Amino acid sequence: MDASQLAHLARQASRHLAILDNQTKNAALEQIRNELINQADRIFAANRQDMDRSVGEGLPEPLRKRLKFDARKLDDVSQGIKDLTRLPDPVGRTQMATRLDLGLDLYRVSCPIGVIGVIFESRPDALVQISCLCLKSGNAALLKGGSEARETNRVLADIIDGAGQAAGLPAGWIGLLETRAEVDQLLAMDEDVDLLIPRGSNAFVRYIMDHTRIPVLGHADGVCHLYIDKACDPEMAIRLAVDSKIQYVAVCNAAETILLHADLADSLLPRLAVALKAERVEIYGCERVCARLGCLPVHDWHTEYLDYKVSLKLVGSLDEAVAHINRYGSGHTEAIVTADPEAARRFLQETDSGNVFWNCSTRFSDGFRYGFGAEVGISTGKIHARGPVGLEGLVTYQYRLLGQGQTVADYAAGTKTFCHQPLDREYPLHPENADNHD
Amino acid sequence: MDASQLAHLARQASRHLAILDNQTKNAALEQIRNELINQADRIFAANRQDMDRSVGEGLPEPLRKRLKFDARKLDDVSQGIKDLTRLPDPVGRTQMATRLDLGLDLYRVSCPIGVIGVIFESRPDALVQISCLCLKSGNAALLKGGSEARETNRVLADIIDGAGQAAGLPAGWIGLLETRAEVDQLLAMDEDVDLLIPRGSNAFVRYIMDHTRIPVLGHADGVCHLYIDKACDPEMAIRLAVDSKIQYVAVCNAAETILLHADLADSLLPRLAVALKAERVEIYGCERVCARLGCLPVHDWHTEYLDYKVSLKLVGSLDEAVAHINRYGSGHTEAIVTADPEAARRFLQETDSGNVFWNCSTRFSDGFRYGFGAEVGISTGKIHARGPVGLEGLVTYQYRLLGQGQTVADYAAGTKTFCHQPLDREYPLHPENADNHD
Repeated sequence: MDASQLAHLARQASRHLAILDNQTKNAALEQIRNELINQADRIFAANRQDMDRSVGEGLPEPLRKRLKFDARKLDDVSQGIKDLTRLPDPVGRTQMATRLDLGLDLYRVSCPIGVIGVIFESRPDALVQISCLCLKSGNAALLKGGSEARETNRVLADIIDGAGQAAGLPAGWIGLLETRAEVDQLLAMDEDVDLLIPRGSNAFVRYIMDHTRIPVLGHADGVCHLYIDKACDPEMAIRLAVDSKIQYVAVCNAAETILLHADLADSLLPRLAVALKAERVEIYGCERVCARLGCLPVHDWHTEYLDYKVSLKLVGSLDEAVAHINRYGSGHTEAIVTADPEAARRFLQETDSGNVFWNCSTRFSDGFRYGFGAEVGISTGKIHARGPVGLEGLVTYQYRLLGQGQTVADYAAGTKTFCHQPLDREYPLHPENADNHD
Repeated sequence: MDASQLAHLARQASRHLAILDNQTKNAALEQIRNELINQADRIFAANRQDMDRSVGEGLPEPLRKRLKFDARKLDDVSQGIKDLTRLPDPVGRTQMATRLDLGLDLYRVSCPIGVIGVIFESRPDALVQISCLCLKSGNAALLKGGSEARETNRVLADIIDGAGQAAGLPAGWIGLLETRAEVDQLLAMDEDVDLLIPRGSNAFVRYIMDHTRIPVLGHADGVCHLYIDKACDPEMAIRLAVDSKIQYVAVCNAAETILLHADLADSLLPRLAVALKAERVEIYGCERVCARLGCLPVHDWHTEYLDYKVSLKLVGSLDEAVAHINRYGSGHTEAIVTADPEAARRFLQETDSGNVFWNCSTRFSDGFRYGFGAEVGISTGKIHARGPVGLEGLVTYQYRLLGQGQTVADYAAGTKTFCHQPLDREYPLHPENADNHD
């Protein structure tokens, strides 16, 4: 089956998925979890093929680490599925209710988006995670993984699809794409695909955006900043700088640039440098920092190192810090260290990023730490979903208006008028509470 | 100034607009309203130039009607601005609050999107409405109107910009584009423009989507359906069919297709035909309808007539009605007439459109009727905003995390754990309630 046939089938399946209740979706998730465990040896064997081939092809060590799917990864995804079954159904939630007039009630109810295309890189565990997130939110999923993981992905998709269908999901609820040509086909299928979620390099995400009219929930670079204000506790500043930079360097919410108030150049700068160097962090400075520390100059303030490297700049004021961040940041996560609530207030309001923090590490920027229970990704865009995106990012809503034969002509003529009163009630036409409708 | 300079300036202005309080924004709106009234003669004179030229250029009558900006239109926009000042500030609202741990509180707070590009057609009153909606929501606006309204648009933009700046708004908060070439420039400015709202034909919206990586809040056709179920009150069915079709034929929420349960072919169909013909509606039918009524056959079920014309089809079941709508509809508004709550429940859940109605006219699909107080447009997309879009569609949100020096290392090591308790409180760092922060 080619990509366009898969997309047509996914569109059809999506209408069935949209009306499944939470119990059915959870039973399917449970079945998927069991089958992944039952067929673990088959998965590991496929993954060994991918691993062996990738050694031969000279895949770099960090990528091979991501490619590996072993018992520990299986435990992780299995736990992830279990957690997902415990989350409330994101579909069918009443987001708003208004009485327009007596006997004319408006409800805004969450519903699935439809068909979601996800393009991800080497980690095959992402395939499990994404397909289960789509299932829980009632969406059909078209998935394209990295070619280095093709054997693992094929086996995982086959197990997940089979277990899902055995639990009553419609054929086509998950589709696996395998070639770059199929991705290009996918980009043209705006009739059948409602949202694209590319996970990859910045250049890749931009390529996707340039070649489709399908909306894209994109994650660009994480060029995160920590600004150390002059009115800070120096111990806290050093602790947060170290944690933001090195607690896990390879991730998007690690700090890449530290901005330090120039008044702290004599007192805090040398201590900060010692603390960072003790953690093997190389400092790249602005001119003044280089002069004081004898370090290398920053090449480009847009740089996302994802490594034991940091850009360090002295700024004369909060305004300069905010302006630097709004110019060079990627809209991901920025933190201020300050004892001054007014400085914090302004920083949090004026910094144009999805996540803005006061006196804590940039590394907190994460759907699980936020308590979402699941994470679709982190959006650096501003439309639809911003920051860490939970299941909520995979649903949209419908306005449902329940009347008793009302025409607009009566309201236009003024024989009837709208009252627009907020209603404190749930949408009454769910199967489980259909009796409540009066 | 060219489009890219206007966009740069708008980006800078947007950071100032984002931090304005509601009082300042309302004062600016009031100032704009006063100046529009004070300079009414100047506006009318410019509009006469456009009207005269458009007669010479042979602009069709309905478009000239839309182009006209007279005392009545001024009254309308003036009332619209007054209404807008009475709405609560869409910015700075606490959408979610969670205690992650003691002394580590997460807030989701609404904030402006940034710079919004709006491309609209001949109605110059749209320029006033859009710029005021952007101002109220703290966004900078880049506007491109129809060339037939260029003199009126120029004067309106000049008055609005001047009054806004006199009230303290930053230079560049509103920018007027005048040529198609500037629109093409705008489409490339994804660094400076956050959202595009095209208002125009379907082909035009698709052109925009195909030529930009900026997110698009698009309105496509309104191919709305009314499905008359077999278990309906026939009087109500006829009343709603007539209202949905002819209460105002030229708008997107007018019904274009009526689906009638085949069991009603003998009883209701002839009466429905009489009622529609009495309102001068031409019926285009499916094969069976044509055989019974002797009408012309439907050319294309996707048709949006925007006229006294309707497509009429007999369907064998609710399932067939839903399948027809999901195939031929544009995702705008669909209504069912039925006395059967189970049929209504299924129709509302299974129909994949932004607005789904039970026993009322499709014409209710409108931001003002929904009680939003203002309408940005009606979105037939599913991402970001769906259905009638109020001011809410012009804001996004930020996650703001307030800590006391917490590092992620402590949580990773297990020396601290997250509690994830919902907090029943507002974000404490607004200027007006900064004292509340503990």
